[in-house]
Amino acid sequence: MPPPEKITSLQNPRLKQLVKLRDRRSRDEAGVFLVEGYREIFRALEKRVVLHELYFSPDWFLGENEPALLARAEAAGAKLFELPKEAFAKVAYRDRPDGLLAVAPQWRRTLEDLAAPPGVTPFFLIVEAIEKPGNLGTILRGADAAGCQAVIVCDPVTDLFNPNVVRASTGVLFSVPCVVEDRERALAWLRGRKIRTVATTPAAEGLYSDADLRGPLAVVMGSEQYGLSDFWLKNADLAVRIPMAGQADSLNVAMAAIITLFEAVRQRQP
Amino acid sequence: MPPPEKITSLQNPRLKQLVKLRDRRSRDEAGVFLVEGYREIFRALEKRVVLHELYFSPDWFLGENEPALLARAEAAGAKLFELPKEAFAKVAYRDRPDGLLAVAPQWRRTLEDLAAPPGVTPFFLIVEAIEKPGNLGTILRGADAAGCQAVIVCDPVTDLFNPNVVRASTGVLFSVPCVVEDRERALAWLRGRKIRTVATTPAAEGLYSDADLRGPLAVVMGSEQYGLSDFWLKNADLAVRIPMAGQADSLNVAMAAIITLFEAVRQRQP
Repeated sequence: MPPPEKITSLQNPRLKQLVKLRDRRSRDEAGVFLVEGYREIFRALEKRVVLHELYFSPDWFLGENEPALLARAEAAGAKLFELPKEAFAKVAYRDRPDGLLAVAPQWRRTLEDLAAPPGVTPFFLIVEAIEKPGNLGTILRGADAAGCQAVIVCDPVTDLFNPNVVRASTGVLFSVPCVVEDRERALAWLRGRKIRTVATTPAAEGLYSDADLRGPLAVVMGSEQYGLSDFWLKNADLAVRIPMAGQADSLNVAMAAIITLFEAVRQRQP
Repeated sequence: MPPPEKITSLQNPRLKQLVKLRDRRSRDEAGVFLVEGYREIFRALEKRVVLHELYFSPDWFLGENEPALLARAEAAGAKLFELPKEAFAKVAYRDRPDGLLAVAPQWRRTLEDLAAPPGVTPFFLIVEAIEKPGNLGTILRGADAAGCQAVIVCDPVTDLFNPNVVRASTGVLFSVPCVVEDRERALAWLRGRKIRTVATTPAAEGLYSDADLRGPLAVVMGSEQYGLSDFWLKNADLAVRIPMAGQADSLNVAMAAIITLFEAVRQRQP
């Protein structure tokens, strides 16, 4: 293959567009998003995501595997661009870049894409109106570790393709199926499949660990600031709470999600 | 009381010293640390921490309770300094300041300070060589929520008084007793009190949820990059693992700590 194109001027229109992709509107117009960092790009390639472009700057590389990653991305269809150190620092989103920044296509999954494999008991996480990208990314990691088949994001405040979601998820965004859907349709879909919904709220009487979390299950978590909406509080099959020993808000939504999901994992062990 | 002193020049030696406190050496030399933000300062005052200084800038205030907080801090002994908006932005550690930044005295607790109240079963978290301040702060929140009597920080890489620990802990640093101690002394102290140590490691055979986590207990967590040291792997009474469904590193150390602590909480319910 020919050597990668070199870009030296920050006035280059590609770099200007790259910086614009930090904004949701630009991302949505172009139908793409930013994937920064070795681990995140590696996971994208593992999941056969075809990267449109991959910008790199060897001066920032942290390890020795970067050339292999570049070759793999190029072989899979990515166009490579080499940048000088200073220019890369300008387009990188992170404070401490590792010299790798890709542009990947966005995708949209729907509930209909979520057919569970035969013999697998449905196990979903529903998050409502999460505000902080970092929390959403952490929640995706927890759902992945717990073996959720998908995360259903209802009435999102945060864009799934926000760079901080990608970063906080450490690339798990590429492996856990995520569906963005409004709550009425999500509930109808779950009910149609006889999947029980368990809402987590400090106002519940019963403890999450006293509830039966086996069988087809969707755990429902509310937003950081407002908790669960009346819609889910009213329509969920069960409401549970996590006991809190310390300060009222010691647990954030990501921690509460992980505690509840892993209690379900424990109960669901064969 | 007289109105607070106003500082308008960034050349003011107090402000220069304030910025220096971001560095550990300056913090340790002065025996103080930075506490930024309404919630964090509120919690410090609740725990009767005597703030040395409190810098504020009403242009950044987010709510209406700040004047009451200032009055409370001043009554408790803090010296107040008012800054113009731009100067405050320069000394603030956060990207989005809320106009409140305090200097608080550091403290040192020792194992001998950790006498458990009578009738309370010992329940501790031990963390080893945690590297990221954000993880350490999140771990403190989890330990607070789970009702740990203290966190023992062994062979620390991260300074407990790092501004990012204070921030990620949302001020829980002021309520959960933390002891910095080397591992040999920590182990001897635990053994002397017949407190069982349970190490969490992916290499263990048994699941954390199959272990008996009742009775006097210390959960031991390793560092992000290297996991637990041989010392704890060899000397802990039991080693357990958390089952992982997804990517190998979906769970970080803070999430693993919270999962293990809350399984202990579940088992220890009366």
